[in-house]
Amino acid sequence: MAKPAPKRRKKTPTRAKATAQSMAGQQREISVSEFFTKNRHLLGFDSPTKALLTTIKEAVDNALDACEEAEILPELYVEIVSTGENRYRIIVEDNGPGIVEAQVPRIFGKLLYGSKFHRLRQSRGQQGIGISAAGMYGQLTTAKPVVIESKTNPREPGRHFELVIDTLKNEPVVKKNVEVDYEGWKHGTRVEIELEGIYKGGRRGVDAYLQQTSLANPHVHITYKDPKGEQSVYERATDELPEPALEIQPHPYGVEVGLLLRMAKATKSRHLKAFFQNEFSRVGPKAATSIVEGAGLKTSTSPKRLTGETAERLIASIARTKIPSPPTNCLSPIGEEQLVASMKEQIDADFYTAVTRSPSVYRGNPFQVEVGIAYGGSLPADELATLYRYANRVPLQYQAGACAASKGVLQTNWKSYGLQQSRGALPSGPLLVMVHIASVWVPFTSESKEAIASYDEIIKEFKLALQQAGRELGRHVKRRARERDEAKKRAYIEKYIPHVGIALQEILGLSDRQEKKIVDTLTDTLERSRKI
Amino acid sequence: MAKPAPKRRKKTPTRAKATAQSMAGQQREISVSEFFTKNRHLLGFDSPTKALLTTIKEAVDNALDACEEAEILPELYVEIVSTGENRYRIIVEDNGPGIVEAQVPRIFGKLLYGSKFHRLRQSRGQQGIGISAAGMYGQLTTAKPVVIESKTNPREPGRHFELVIDTLKNEPVVKKNVEVDYEGWKHGTRVEIELEGIYKGGRRGVDAYLQQTSLANPHVHITYKDPKGEQSVYERATDELPEPALEIQPHPYGVEVGLLLRMAKATKSRHLKAFFQNEFSRVGPKAATSIVEGAGLKTSTSPKRLTGETAERLIASIARTKIPSPPTNCLSPIGEEQLVASMKEQIDADFYTAVTRSPSVYRGNPFQVEVGIAYGGSLPADELATLYRYANRVPLQYQAGACAASKGVLQTNWKSYGLQQSRGALPSGPLLVMVHIASVWVPFTSESKEAIASYDEIIKEFKLALQQAGRELGRHVKRRARERDEAKKRAYIEKYIPHVGIALQEILGLSDRQEKKIVDTLTDTLERSRKI
Repeated sequence: MAKPAPKRRKKTPTRAKATAQSMAGQQREISVSEFFTKNRHLLGFDSPTKALLTTIKEAVDNALDACEEAEILPELYVEIVSTGENRYRIIVEDNGPGIVEAQVPRIFGKLLYGSKFHRLRQSRGQQGIGISAAGMYGQLTTAKPVVIESKTNPREPGRHFELVIDTLKNEPVVKKNVEVDYEGWKHGTRVEIELEGIYKGGRRGVDAYLQQTSLANPHVHITYKDPKGEQSVYERATDELPEPALEIQPHPYGVEVGLLLRMAKATKSRHLKAFFQNEFSRVGPKAATSIVEGAGLKTSTSPKRLTGETAERLIASIARTKIPSPPTNCLSPIGEEQLVASMKEQIDADFYTAVTRSPSVYRGNPFQVEVGIAYGGSLPADELATLYRYANRVPLQYQAGACAASKGVLQTNWKSYGLQQSRGALPSGPLLVMVHIASVWVPFTSESKEAIASYDEIIKEFKLALQQAGRELGRHVKRRARERDEAKKRAYIEKYIPHVGIALQEILGLSDRQEKKIVDTLTDTLERSRKI
Repeated sequence: MAKPAPKRRKKTPTRAKATAQSMAGQQREISVSEFFTKNRHLLGFDSPTKALLTTIKEAVDNALDACEEAEILPELYVEIVSTGENRYRIIVEDNGPGIVEAQVPRIFGKLLYGSKFHRLRQSRGQQGIGISAAGMYGQLTTAKPVVIESKTNPREPGRHFELVIDTLKNEPVVKKNVEVDYEGWKHGTRVEIELEGIYKGGRRGVDAYLQQTSLANPHVHITYKDPKGEQSVYERATDELPEPALEIQPHPYGVEVGLLLRMAKATKSRHLKAFFQNEFSRVGPKAATSIVEGAGLKTSTSPKRLTGETAERLIASIARTKIPSPPTNCLSPIGEEQLVASMKEQIDADFYTAVTRSPSVYRGNPFQVEVGIAYGGSLPADELATLYRYANRVPLQYQAGACAASKGVLQTNWKSYGLQQSRGALPSGPLLVMVHIASVWVPFTSESKEAIASYDEIIKEFKLALQQAGRELGRHVKRRARERDEAKKRAYIEKYIPHVGIALQEILGLSDRQEKKIVDTLTDTLERSRKI
């Protein structure tokens, strides 16, 4: 864009020495949708290419979460229709349980609304922002409403919604809500968002994103139609749904004074002891008594009577009480076997391995790290390794530099596994590394969920998983190197021994049979000596 | 923290195949304070060290903004009091205009509330989140209220507030509101927040932050008392306030369909032509007519009647209409002279230079880039250069890797200015680089305002400024290198010529005077030839 012109004013800009009174007149509330409209880069809408991909991603995340929660094998249809220059309509359709009529407007037309924020359970969405933000971006750039069709009951018709967001109030405005039905439609949700965007294939494009999604979600079937009308299908590698992740309660070790006070205010338990037993994970009667009495309080005291001071004593007492670690059935990792199967299905390589670590904990939140490695085959040998990062089975496409997963890979010494690596860079060679974190609450570095924040506990787990997989890889790489060496030696032997034979034949006047015997003996001796 | 124990359940976790109905029951609104409590790393509260620094930073930002807006030379008092293990009370006091009683609770006890978000004007704060988030973090970790004392009128007493945030509602709860006054107190605000934190000095600590603040704000006087009770003073380098930044209207080139529709709905103008003239920056009667008629609309049409379709035509017509760039008196850069003066005051170096670029524009927002360079002197010669990043005069302490300012520095070829630089690294040598962006809306990569998002226009300006300053530096470095060379040669000459003289004297039997003459002639000749 052009440089601003020299200062020549048409209108006198606002300018007056402010006072506390004049400043008070300007103070006002900022709606969360206004905030994100202005800060759209926080949500992944800072460039037209990213905006298009982010929209698809948010819709796919929601579709998969809904299917899995309802224990339905996901069938997704994704389509991108070109509707003008740098303008596309994004369509994402699922066979999930559908959304009840009353909820549709708020789910798609209100930021910070949803079911996943308040519970401790692994899911792709967690903020209640994504899909409504995508709709808001579409509306901002094309003035078109979001179109949602949803059906919850095979015996009743579905609903067709068109809605926009009132960004000043952060509230949905329904423009249309009518009955709709299609032949053979049982249940599910379809969302259409039209937006200003740029379509891109390639490494950071939609195709790559879908392929990586399919890699980490082998139970998902995706049909995809690109803007040229070409259709691709990502087949299922398994018919088994992942083990459902269960909701857990907060663990006492991750609780701070403020949260404790809030929980004590909200609880239905009438005594402190019952409060700790009922509202927290892993607290039995003995631990509950120990926590309460360790703080110099009575087990029969009402939680409502907690103050800042007594809450602090309870927190200190929790730290002194031995409580088992949080349960880990809230997590649903991909699993080593499935990771290898998935890579074998999609990646042409010579060697595959995967490591799923035991769950660990950061700030009271359980998490689990997995790593998959593919090596050799048709992976490009002269380039840096390819890194696929995932959080709760969702591929992360941007901000690799700021991500704890990348840091784990860069801080691993790949030279000791027989690979080349420049300081602070990815290793080079025919290598694909998949890194996955599953958690009840993934700490992303921004609302756009592009990179994982660098908690020490998380980086440590990434590194341990990478080292474990790396050692397997190292054994393979060394074996391969040895085999190459041997092949080279064998080639030399095969090349020179016949000449030695012929020379000896000539010098000593040997018969052909004698010559052949000498060659065989020499070959045999050399082969044997090489093996010692 | 310990690994979670094997799966042994005390309570049966929630687990049921979900339906659209059961899922609907879980949907609910997420308050913005709950959101940021769980995502505290987005606001800069992910570690105790950062939390302490972020709190001071938010309070200082507000204090300086208030003083400058009221055109008062800022006098700040910052104190950190240790109140227990990893626990501190932060006190920041200013001589600003104060805050009127009715506004205090919302400014300090409600996220997304303030005067800076809705206007286009350079200021340190822009989101209405920072100080209330700091209070919320304090409350969460220590259960203590935020204490605010404020006085707006020298002839009336001030108010003493104690308040907490109801995070479920994102609303302030006032615990105390009483009269307060002190001898000699004229006006200003004092805020006290107690929190769990870790105090750190050094390069990323409080002292470094205050020093860097003082460097970019030479009109500010700061008295600082650290937790050990030691007091330091950052003196003013100038008594002149920076040129006040003025508020501007949006520029048509930065407006999208969504915003245009919203503005059209809110305007008091009754005709489209007047709407464009009144509500936008740089639009005169001719341009307004051209925009409206270019879209096939009538200048007398009411803005209220705009639809998505007509708004789109207007946007297209705006792009075809020539409109002068936005005014730049909304920006208040530090200025080349002031930058150099500031560095000379605080940094012991041999060479100083500064470049303030002309304003430029990203997404319709005016911005301006400045660079200051200090070289040599007592700056460490064997280390990588030191980089100070600033946005609207606020030093940025974290996330350097993700910042457009760092990218600008790394992408500059410092070798051509005579410095050493490894690929992708900062140059090495006795170098300090200050990089500043001033804008009506700085696009930060997260709410914690630690790094500038990588808009191409911004990185380009950084690089141009750095190159311009770099060329100055290059001339200095080369001159220095030449001088060193010459000194070396002179040393040689001084060392060897007398020996030549003595040798000649001995061989030719010269008198002392003849010998001296030869030495002088030789010296002279060599000195002269060296200069050619």
